[in-house]
Amino acid sequence: MGRVTERRKVIRIRDGVVSSRPDTLVAEEPLEIRLNGKPLAITMRTPGDDFALAAGFLVSEGVLAAASDLLNIVYCAGATVDGSNSYNVVDVRTAPDVPIPDITLERNVYTTSSCGLCGKASLDAVRTTARWPISDTPPVRVEPELLACLPDRLRAAQRVFDRTGGLHAAALFTEEGELVDVREDVGRHNAVDKLVGRALQNGDLPLSRTILLVSGRASFELAQKAVMAGIPVLAAVSAPSSLAVDLAAETGLTLVGFLRGSSMNVYAGEDRIALRAAATQG
Amino acid sequence: MGRVTERRKVIRIRDGVVSSRPDTLVAEEPLEIRLNGKPLAITMRTPGDDFALAAGFLVSEGVLAAASDLLNIVYCAGATVDGSNSYNVVDVRTAPDVPIPDITLERNVYTTSSCGLCGKASLDAVRTTARWPISDTPPVRVEPELLACLPDRLRAAQRVFDRTGGLHAAALFTEEGELVDVREDVGRHNAVDKLVGRALQNGDLPLSRTILLVSGRASFELAQKAVMAGIPVLAAVSAPSSLAVDLAAETGLTLVGFLRGSSMNVYAGEDRIALRAAATQG
Repeated sequence: MGRVTERRKVIRIRDGVVSSRPDTLVAEEPLEIRLNGKPLAITMRTPGDDFALAAGFLVSEGVLAAASDLLNIVYCAGATVDGSNSYNVVDVRTAPDVPIPDITLERNVYTTSSCGLCGKASLDAVRTTARWPISDTPPVRVEPELLACLPDRLRAAQRVFDRTGGLHAAALFTEEGELVDVREDVGRHNAVDKLVGRALQNGDLPLSRTILLVSGRASFELAQKAVMAGIPVLAAVSAPSSLAVDLAAETGLTLVGFLRGSSMNVYAGEDRIALRAAATQG
Repeated sequence: MGRVTERRKVIRIRDGVVSSRPDTLVAEEPLEIRLNGKPLAITMRTPGDDFALAAGFLVSEGVLAAASDLLNIVYCAGATVDGSNSYNVVDVRTAPDVPIPDITLERNVYTTSSCGLCGKASLDAVRTTARWPISDTPPVRVEPELLACLPDRLRAAQRVFDRTGGLHAAALFTEEGELVDVREDVGRHNAVDKLVGRALQNGDLPLSRTILLVSGRASFELAQKAVMAGIPVLAAVSAPSSLAVDLAAETGLTLVGFLRGSSMNVYAGEDRIALRAAATQG
């Protein structure tokens, strides 16, 4: 697509010295997601991986759970006034037997560059039901030392951030710490949706033996996305919110925050962290 | 409200040493915003300043422009099954002469913890029309040295971040660099909405002689919120997106990014930055 970054003129001021030069910025454009032809959501995203983003969003919303639920995804031509294809509108067609949520005002589905939960017009619908319980049997068990290595592996795999400083990243690792996939986006929820959507397309859901690492904070929506994809361990470089911790505790998700250097905080699901092994090294 | 932070047990791992203790987390809860009794939006926010958040959100959406547009704002009792007041649902009542947008599927309004733009089901509606042009006459003119001081003033005024590490902040400054107001929230768009909503309630819109500083990146939605409130200068500690720069260039907003130490990048509206004064110091 070639639209992951864009160039703009910038005036730089460095200790009082002014210069003008082109700068590389992260691209941000709206994406309208349609479900069987019906507008469902608009998200501000970094172009690219749009089909995966749409598929992953629909996993988080409980619409899709397997590759077979998906008939196809297409860019909609004719979505603009002049009939051209903006590549900003995608239509997700589901298999005939997939139940489609009733998109009404009472329960409409809406997302944005940092939202995955939302789209429920009722607060009662905030905690959606996961399609699978987290079913890692035997339970995934991770050494703290392995977790401590993951942020460096994520940064090494990030390509756009170095050029723009403007992207959130999300990465999937195996329980042995091997990088499976990494995605970047202006919206951190989009980065996770892109990972999960790819996994759906590859027939890899639920992601029962993986670790999800996010570059920023752990919000409720990110915890929800992990749960909806069957991911047992969510690790964040920054702080979690109270609601993310509550959701993790309720669903059995392991939630790690402030993963920096050899330090981390475990907020829920500590049974998956090899704590005794760590303590003996203290 | 006392719900800005919450305590949870956390297991800390520091260089292999494991300890357990209570930790302070930033609170995150959903807020449903109703307009004249009709559900309009749900956002994940840090409780507190909810009326200002709702009012500011409606400024960004073009519904409110003056304190007189607002009849009142109340928490809805009876919004939960047991009839109790969750303090998570607010109803904004507008004055009789305020035109109310038609909330249909084609143009529904929806927001989240990091979204202000969205809520337009059509991509054509992405660039909403501002209620005022940016009308700073004579134009605000800011020395780079003054801008360089603002991030420290913001951090000094942040109260919750030190305890949780989990909050975005937004601050309003006068053109002389004096702090007017600062708000913190799990969602950076909420922090801006809270600032703008307060200004509306105080009769201070448009904010024609102010500088808005945000702690993170400058997205399209943040640029839009600045424009909708009539703020002439938006400064961000991190990177802007391409669309934020485009919107700033189109509307005459001054957009500064990577404001760190004595360095910054000016992406649009450089006429408000006293560049020659800076250059002579180079």
